[in-house]
Amino acid sequence: MPEDAHPTPGRRHPTIDDVARLAGVSTATVSRSLNSPARVREATRLAVEQAVNQLGYTPNFGGQALASNRTNTIGAIIPTMENAIFARALQALQETLATRNVTLLVATSQYSPTHEEAQIRTLLARGVDGLVLIGNDRLPGAYQLLDARGVPFVVLWSAPADAQHPTIGFNNIAAAAEVAHNVIGHGHRDIAMIAGIAQGNDRARDRIQGVSQALAKAGLSLSPGHLIECHYTVKDAELAATQLLQSDRRPTAIICGNDVLAAGCLRAARQHGVEVPSDLSVTGFDDIELATAVFPPLATVRVPHRRMGANAGEALLGWLETGIRPASVVLPTEFVQRLSLGDAPPGRR
Amino acid sequence: MPEDAHPTPGRRHPTIDDVARLAGVSTATVSRSLNSPARVREATRLAVEQAVNQLGYTPNFGGQALASNRTNTIGAIIPTMENAIFARALQALQETLATRNVTLLVATSQYSPTHEEAQIRTLLARGVDGLVLIGNDRLPGAYQLLDARGVPFVVLWSAPADAQHPTIGFNNIAAAAEVAHNVIGHGHRDIAMIAGIAQGNDRARDRIQGVSQALAKAGLSLSPGHLIECHYTVKDAELAATQLLQSDRRPTAIICGNDVLAAGCLRAARQHGVEVPSDLSVTGFDDIELATAVFPPLATVRVPHRRMGANAGEALLGWLETGIRPASVVLPTEFVQRLSLGDAPPGRR
Repeated sequence: MPEDAHPTPGRRHPTIDDVARLAGVSTATVSRSLNSPARVREATRLAVEQAVNQLGYTPNFGGQALASNRTNTIGAIIPTMENAIFARALQALQETLATRNVTLLVATSQYSPTHEEAQIRTLLARGVDGLVLIGNDRLPGAYQLLDARGVPFVVLWSAPADAQHPTIGFNNIAAAAEVAHNVIGHGHRDIAMIAGIAQGNDRARDRIQGVSQALAKAGLSLSPGHLIECHYTVKDAELAATQLLQSDRRPTAIICGNDVLAAGCLRAARQHGVEVPSDLSVTGFDDIELATAVFPPLATVRVPHRRMGANAGEALLGWLETGIRPASVVLPTEFVQRLSLGDAPPGRR
Repeated sequence: MPEDAHPTPGRRHPTIDDVARLAGVSTATVSRSLNSPARVREATRLAVEQAVNQLGYTPNFGGQALASNRTNTIGAIIPTMENAIFARALQALQETLATRNVTLLVATSQYSPTHEEAQIRTLLARGVDGLVLIGNDRLPGAYQLLDARGVPFVVLWSAPADAQHPTIGFNNIAAAAEVAHNVIGHGHRDIAMIAGIAQGNDRARDRIQGVSQALAKAGLSLSPGHLIECHYTVKDAELAATQLLQSDRRPTAIICGNDVLAAGCLRAARQHGVEVPSDLSVTGFDDIELATAVFPPLATVRVPHRRMGANAGEALLGWLETGIRPASVVLPTEFVQRLSLGDAPPGRR
């Protein structure tokens, strides 16, 4: 990002006139371009955006402008609504915001950084006071847009990637390593993993890394073909698990990137007459409601859903009221032992 | 709603000047009140709102204004994100809107008509071009607000309640009656129901009515204590089912208002050593992913999630482009037989 995208205190804040002059358009066009980008030509929008970024123009933030321009709306962009992964955190976020009459608007990125950038643009155009985003993987343009506009945002679900962006999350590597450590502790040696798609998703990538590190520490590794990435659906996980159950050396434990994937594993095991946990152990991640709705209930990682959501709300409200960027927070996770994880079969320890 | 809230064709559309004059404020204040209600005093906001309603002022809709004022944003207000009930419909809606570069913003009402009205106000203030709402139960003020602003909206998940509001849904009464008919067909006489909370939720109410009607037709009824309403969570349903399983005359079948409730029933049955389906049959409603992730898989009603979402998107886009209100659509549902529904135990038919 250009160095001058961060106006230092004491320096004059760039105005809409500065942007209009630099972009060679009227102030009305600048305003329209920022607020209703669909109403201006693409070339105009790009010229205005370039000027905004170059000057570090911040229409909605900083000092006096802060309080008077507020719309009392916060936007959240989550990867998907398809499963309930993000539901409880959003619920807690919404409840926290509601205590100050602030409304939450949600958009989804479909796990696509390109879509996420477009959604950020839309929510900024709709005038949100701040944003909640998931994870650290995003396009440089998205960060530039956020920094140039100076809109407060917090990142959930990940550990802090840098000092710039407040993150309220947890350590996915350590949490996944703890799962693997527990699986190894039950005597498993042939361990497979069904993970989320790592590309563009730092949480999925970190969980793979955590499992790999814990296995390596125990002198083990994921054999070739024993790490499968798939979309977070029961059906895709069922296919992946079927592949593992039919492989030459069948794993005795499958570590899953989340609870939805683990539910798919259980279904595949049932269809192939594989008993869980006596023949096969399965673990999840998240501890959503599904984890105990299936049978056997899933050994999994309890993620601080509600705390992340509530903390994010407090952080954004405080930031908007004081102008002071909140600190990053790393919340604890907890491994939860349940029936789906048992000892490895005697002959295969 | 006031008669003059519906300007007839040929009559002059009221302007922002008319609203300002009637409310006794400046046009700038009218604009601010409509677009950033948090920035005006409550008394001012109410005066402007009253004038808007009285005149039937429609800032975002009708004729020429239509195309030029569009923000290419559609809002949806769903009761909850906590379980995946509305996820697939939103996904299909979003995909349909994306084909025309229209973004979907989602807010939740927590099954509260009061919250829903507030969320409608917020989304209108953020300038959405149209709205997607769930069900027909809402406060009169919400309808007045929508009608006065003239913002296109469609209702999903219900059958049409009147000719005014386009509805893209299905017949909950008939679908629930079909479930009960199938349960009765398996020889069950002692039938209980765990339903969603009927107050403020026409879908929950209609499903209770459908089950009651089908039972009555077979000379049966829900005995006192055999109809329990609860929140749509696994845990609440588990408590409700436990109560039914411990009652003097234990039902041989529990019809659930949705799949989440049915998952809670299965968990309660397991904990009390009650075999499904040999001792107890359980049915769901929705056919979300959970229905086949649990065991035994749920006999349920397949709801046209994706068709509702896609049709709603097409209907709103068409309405915005042509100005012609779309017709209501009643989509078919389908009863899906699965393992959780079996014959009543021999001694209890």
